[in-house]
Amino acid sequence: MDYEIYDLGSVVLQNGATMRNCKLAYKTFGTLNAAKDNAIVYPTWYSGQHEANEWLIGPGMALDPANYFIIIPNMLGNGLSSSPSNTPEPYNGPRFPKVTAYDNVHAQHRLVTEVFGIATLPLVVGWSMGALQTFHWGALYPDMVQRIAPFCGSAKCSRHNFVFLEGVKAALTADVAFAGGWYTSKPTTGLRAMARVYAGWGFSQDFYRENLDLTALGYSSLEDFLVAFWEGFFLPKDANNLLAMLWTWQNGDISANEVYSGDYAKALGAIKAKAYVMPGQTDLYFPVADSEIEVAHMPNATLVPVPSIWGHFAGGGINPVDTAFIDGKLKELLAS
Amino acid sequence: MDYEIYDLGSVVLQNGATMRNCKLAYKTFGTLNAAKDNAIVYPTWYSGQHEANEWLIGPGMALDPANYFIIIPNMLGNGLSSSPSNTPEPYNGPRFPKVTAYDNVHAQHRLVTEVFGIATLPLVVGWSMGALQTFHWGALYPDMVQRIAPFCGSAKCSRHNFVFLEGVKAALTADVAFAGGWYTSKPTTGLRAMARVYAGWGFSQDFYRENLDLTALGYSSLEDFLVAFWEGFFLPKDANNLLAMLWTWQNGDISANEVYSGDYAKALGAIKAKAYVMPGQTDLYFPVADSEIEVAHMPNATLVPVPSIWGHFAGGGINPVDTAFIDGKLKELLAS
Repeated sequence: MDYEIYDLGSVVLQNGATMRNCKLAYKTFGTLNAAKDNAIVYPTWYSGQHEANEWLIGPGMALDPANYFIIIPNMLGNGLSSSPSNTPEPYNGPRFPKVTAYDNVHAQHRLVTEVFGIATLPLVVGWSMGALQTFHWGALYPDMVQRIAPFCGSAKCSRHNFVFLEGVKAALTADVAFAGGWYTSKPTTGLRAMARVYAGWGFSQDFYRENLDLTALGYSSLEDFLVAFWEGFFLPKDANNLLAMLWTWQNGDISANEVYSGDYAKALGAIKAKAYVMPGQTDLYFPVADSEIEVAHMPNATLVPVPSIWGHFAGGGINPVDTAFIDGKLKELLAS
Repeated sequence: MDYEIYDLGSVVLQNGATMRNCKLAYKTFGTLNAAKDNAIVYPTWYSGQHEANEWLIGPGMALDPANYFIIIPNMLGNGLSSSPSNTPEPYNGPRFPKVTAYDNVHAQHRLVTEVFGIATLPLVVGWSMGALQTFHWGALYPDMVQRIAPFCGSAKCSRHNFVFLEGVKAALTADVAFAGGWYTSKPTTGLRAMARVYAGWGFSQDFYRENLDLTALGYSSLEDFLVAFWEGFFLPKDANNLLAMLWTWQNGDISANEVYSGDYAKALGAIKAKAYVMPGQTDLYFPVADSEIEVAHMPNATLVPVPSIWGHFAGGGINPVDTAFIDGKLKELLAS
C-alpha cells in the first residue's frame, strides 16, 4: 500500500448522514519544512485515485518534491477513501451517503491541520472535480490558501454539465445487472455503455478529426480506442463508487453551504488567493465561457485557457505539450 | 393518412441486401408547374417524419406552396417509409438491411423522376441527416440540382459524431428488454437512457446556461425538460427504427459509392449547385469547423453559420429567430 489513511472518526455530512470511521486516504511527496509553509494540496478527480495525479509531480516541475510537501487526498467515493465499495453495512453500496465537495474539503482541511499542523498553503491545485475542490478550498479557507490553480473544472456544476452526467448515469444504470446498486456481479454492460457515452465528451471534435487517438495515443482504430481506452478505463471501477462521485459532481456548488448560503457571486468573491483559472480551450463540459464568469467574480484571478484540442483531457496528463503548459503556468503562479 | 406511398419494387441496396416492395412515403405541398421546374426536395432527419419538416413551409416563406412544389420524402427506417417496424418477415426488426444515405437519395431520385417526371430541381434542402441527403443529391445528380442548402449537418459523419452516436446506441441497447432487437415490449429503460444521453448533445452549453429550456421553451424545471421533451421525444419511437437510422447516419459518406470511390474531396468538388452550407454556430456534433472543410472543397458554396446558441436545434424549427434566419437565407438563395 503506497498511501496513508487518516481516520476522521464520525463525520456528520452536509446532507445529514453520519459517516462513522470516515477514512481519508492520501499520499504525500517531499518533506514538510520546519515552518510548515511549503505544503500543496492536490485533490483527485472523478474516478481517479492518487496515482492518477502523479504526472504533474516530479523533479524540475512546479510540483517538485525537493521544494514542496505535496498532499494528494483521495476524494470520498473513489474506492480508497470511504466509498460505497469499502464501507461496511448498513451504509454500504447504494446506501452510501451523499457526499458534497464541501464535505470533501472539510475532511481534507482536518487532515492538513490535525495531522500535519499546517496553517498556510502556498497552493491548492486540481483537475476537473479536483478543480471543484480547489475552488472550495479558496472560498472556505480564504486566509489559509495563498494561491489556487483549478484547471479544466468549475466552482459549480453547470446545467449542461449536469445533463451530460445524466446521460452517463442513465447509460450505467440501464443495465439490469446494476439492480439498483445491489449487483452481485459487475454490471459490465452498463459500464461499457457509460464508457461509450463518456468517449464523446472527454475529447474534442478537433481531437477526433485530427485522429489523435491513433497518431498521438497509438490506438489501432477508433473502435480500439473506444474499447481499450474508454471501456478499459471504466470496467475496473465500482459502479456505486462511480455514482457516488457523480452525485458529488452534479451537486458541486461553491456556495451551497452555511458560509455562503447559495450566493455564488459572494463565494467566488471571497477567494483571496491569487488564482490562475485554466479551462481547456476545447473542453466540452467545462467550456471557457463558464470560467470567464468565475474569473469575473474573483478579485485576484486570471483566466489562462490551455491552448489545446485535447478537450477535457488537456488536463489529463496524457499530452506532453499540455502538461508542459500547465506546469509552466504553475511555476509562474508559485513564483509570484 | 396525410401522405402518399411509392412502391419502388425490389431495390438492391449498396450493402447487398434486396429490399422487396420497398416503400417510399412522401408528402407534397403546392403544385408542380407545367414546365416541371419548380420542385424542391426536402428530406427528413434522424427519427423525424414528414410532418416534423413542415415548420419551414408556408405562405410568405421561402418554401411557399404557392410558388413551389415541395416534396418531403421520408427516410428509410423512419417508420413510414420501409423500416424495421413495418417490413414483413424475414427482413423485419433487427434483420432490416443496412441502408445508406446513397440508397435513400437513389430511391428519392426514382420518386422524383418516375412519379413526377421532374428533370431539374431548383433546391434541395434539409436539416441534420436531411443535410446529409442534401449533400448526396448535389454530388450524385450535379446536373439536376441547381441549389442546395444543407443546414446543421455534414456530407460525411465525422469521427466525433460517430462516437457521440456510439454512446446513444450503447445506452439504448444496454436495456435487457431490447433483447438484441427481438423485444416483445418497448425497451423503455433504454429509450429513456438514450434520451438523456442525447439531451446534452442536442442543445449547447450556452442554451442550458441561459435557461432557454425554461424561459423560451416553457418547461418547469431541468428535470421536466429531460422527461417531457427528451424522453417524450424518443419513447414513442421504435428502437430498431432508431438503430437503423443511426447506422445510416454513422455510415453517411458522400463519397462511399461507385461514383466517387471514397474520394471525399472529389465528391464535394463535383457539386455544381450553388450552395449555402449552414452549420449552427454552437452545434456540438456538426461543428462549424467541419462545414468550413466542406465548403473549401465545393466550387460554388458559401458558409453561412446560423448565429444561434440553440446548438443543433438552431435548425429544428423551435426557435422563431433561427427559423427566420434560415428562411431568409433560403429566400436569398432561391432568388439568386
